[in-house]
Amino acid sequence: MIVPRLIERKRDGGRLEPSEIRELVLAYSAGQIPDYQVAALLMAIYFKGLDRGEMNALMEAMLESGKRLDFSRLPLPRIDKHSTGGVGDKTSLILAPLIASCGVAVPMMSGRGLGHTGGTLDKLESIPGFRTALSLDEAQRQVARIGCAMLSQSDEIVPADRKMYALRDATATVEVIPLIAASIMSKKISESLTGLVLDIKRGSGSFISDLDDELALARAMIDLGASHGCPVVALLTAMDRPLGEACGNALELVEAIDVLRGAGPRDLIEVTEALGVEMLILATVATTPEGAREMMRETIASGRALAKLEEIISAQGGDPRVARDPSRLPRAPHQAPFEAGADGVVQRVDPRTIGYGVIALGGGRRNMEDTIDPSVGFVVKAKPGNRFRKGQPLASIHAQSPKGLELGRSILEEAIVVGPSKVEALPLVSHRVTARGAEELEGGA
Amino acid sequence: MIVPRLIERKRDGGRLEPSEIRELVLAYSAGQIPDYQVAALLMAIYFKGLDRGEMNALMEAMLESGKRLDFSRLPLPRIDKHSTGGVGDKTSLILAPLIASCGVAVPMMSGRGLGHTGGTLDKLESIPGFRTALSLDEAQRQVARIGCAMLSQSDEIVPADRKMYALRDATATVEVIPLIAASIMSKKISESLTGLVLDIKRGSGSFISDLDDELALARAMIDLGASHGCPVVALLTAMDRPLGEACGNALELVEAIDVLRGAGPRDLIEVTEALGVEMLILATVATTPEGAREMMRETIASGRALAKLEEIISAQGGDPRVARDPSRLPRAPHQAPFEAGADGVVQRVDPRTIGYGVIALGGGRRNMEDTIDPSVGFVVKAKPGNRFRKGQPLASIHAQSPKGLELGRSILEEAIVVGPSKVEALPLVSHRVTARGAEELEGGA
Repeated sequence: MIVPRLIERKRDGGRLEPSEIRELVLAYSAGQIPDYQVAALLMAIYFKGLDRGEMNALMEAMLESGKRLDFSRLPLPRIDKHSTGGVGDKTSLILAPLIASCGVAVPMMSGRGLGHTGGTLDKLESIPGFRTALSLDEAQRQVARIGCAMLSQSDEIVPADRKMYALRDATATVEVIPLIAASIMSKKISESLTGLVLDIKRGSGSFISDLDDELALARAMIDLGASHGCPVVALLTAMDRPLGEACGNALELVEAIDVLRGAGPRDLIEVTEALGVEMLILATVATTPEGAREMMRETIASGRALAKLEEIISAQGGDPRVARDPSRLPRAPHQAPFEAGADGVVQRVDPRTIGYGVIALGGGRRNMEDTIDPSVGFVVKAKPGNRFRKGQPLASIHAQSPKGLELGRSILEEAIVVGPSKVEALPLVSHRVTARGAEELEGGA
Repeated sequence: MIVPRLIERKRDGGRLEPSEIRELVLAYSAGQIPDYQVAALLMAIYFKGLDRGEMNALMEAMLESGKRLDFSRLPLPRIDKHSTGGVGDKTSLILAPLIASCGVAVPMMSGRGLGHTGGTLDKLESIPGFRTALSLDEAQRQVARIGCAMLSQSDEIVPADRKMYALRDATATVEVIPLIAASIMSKKISESLTGLVLDIKRGSGSFISDLDDELALARAMIDLGASHGCPVVALLTAMDRPLGEACGNALELVEAIDVLRGAGPRDLIEVTEALGVEMLILATVATTPEGAREMMRETIASGRALAKLEEIISAQGGDPRVARDPSRLPRAPHQAPFEAGADGVVQRVDPRTIGYGVIALGGGRRNMEDTIDPSVGFVVKAKPGNRFRKGQPLASIHAQSPKGLELGRSILEEAIVVGPSKVEALPLVSHRVTARGAEELEGGA
């Protein structure tokens, strides 16, 4: 294999053979090909793409580079949910215990905050003692025992993807649909799932900005799943405003617990239920959306979902009492309301500004070395289209200091735009994509 | 400076500021930016290009990374000639002594064989004892003393270019006009020239395959030269067949000596004179092409050009007797004619096949570690359009063994196509490009 010839071929719009991609990825993972050649190839792929066969070969090679969860002796359906990333998105925190308490195994591998978006691992770690760095063996045993484990990607799982993802991040080659699809799906296939639900975010707060690209990503991941007997269903959901009200690690956990207790914001419940319906139907424990909704509502009403969260927290070293008493979670010492400056209609609530605002308050990382303050953030009641009177609270700010409150205020002043006119917002759940095709859904927000 | 943001901007078709390029190149040269980020940036530049300002900033930064020849106390015009690379092109071996003996300083920095093409340094090193690795100081003193030095690029000269060129070679990012132009011109400006003549090769044996690209390269280099008070004149010359007859290191030196003695193939003389005319006029030692031609012919006829070659060889540690007695150069032990298999007209003589053929006989490098056999190669009498009868010699093969002769025969069978019809070949010198514009020339081969 002469690597510059492969780079040249891709650069000129040609195709790499599956055997070439396999050899390249495994040699790269083993340190036998330098980063600079792979960086040049990735940039050529940015411009020239990968076809289905190339993308599939990439995912296969990444899988081959590591180990997988082994559930050969577990007689349960195994379903995970993956989101492309947003602000205020705490659906994983709700769905993992909720779906696990419906008799489905949920081996859930999550990420940390990236850019302006939050990460499930960071939110979980706001629970005192909670440990996400489980070994593959620990995760397997926990799923077998209590039906769910919530873990981070370790060195054991698709190390080639880990190495390549770090290189992409350093070389401006992240936003390439086949690379995104192969990266996500290699991790998901390594979980040995029987089904996967994707939440592809749309709008100004998402990483992908174009509906065609979102549908293409959904189709690519559906194809990759199909090649491993893992059916994939994708929902396209709104990220032109934060999901729910809480934005910030501990605040979001509190809101997730609210939903598991039968309360919580309407938009968060709607998106969570839509994703849960797909998970339960893929798992074949429900056969209709109505049946699935009914099952979830009963599971919450009975307290089983919240009890499952306690089980998970206990199993992973955290203090399970937070589930019944969220005041045990870290709380910011300074809190203040943010009030409407004039009468009017909320025009927009910009998720990027809110997301970067949480980071500015100390609730996210600017560098990989930063530690996170789990207590800070915002609770934003305002939703686009809501009418407010001057002086009514639009949001609350949670900060470490009076200076933090000031900063939070200036962030919300930028993020929340109030005006005279009516506004258009994206439907909460706009499209459903399966192996049979994409359908646009009725209704929404 | 956040490098991924610069890569992203170039990737998206944006412009890098001169100050950003300077910082990037100097930091890269100092080992403070990893190869993989520069590799991704180079591939983005492959697709999105560099504008004039960016290209100029790149050249300036590369110059700043190293030292220059200092001719501040030398009262002579200083002219070099650079070729984009071809097969059988020994014009540098002729022009260096010829122009130096016309009262012009010729500080000539050359390269080694690259791909299918030969390199002036390799040809010079077929002279027993000849040393091309001169220090900057040695080169300066030699030019002051005898008017010419023929040297290789050392670590002292544009080290950033050296490092980046090696990276480009390993990442399929060589063929980018502004990168080629900045790389060549940084080396040439570091020679502190008062003028430069470019020989841009055209046709199947050249690295650039498109007339627009060749003209764009000429214009780019003219612009870069102008920014340093170094006027540049470019000639576009034919490389759809080898130049002259000899292809192989020592064989080419013998043919160059032939020309310096007033003999040699007509096409080689024509291209050499055309380049020499531009060098002498740029040096202002001649004012008209006719005057320049007359001067060169007299210099050759008087024996001064050949004597200058002897001086250069002596100064650089070689055996000067080869100039009068080329039989002292390495000679291949096995030689055989290659005869026409049928009556007909030579359709084409493929320079790539011939060039790679010389390498196959041992006369070039497959890897950087290979040593070269200077004696092997071909002398190809056949030119496109020549009519031959069956059994007449088209070429001769020079090899180390009877097996080498066989290999040489099969290479020539592929390279030399004889057929019934007339053929079209490129004019030997087709275009002349100066700061005032490009003109297509009349006549040619």
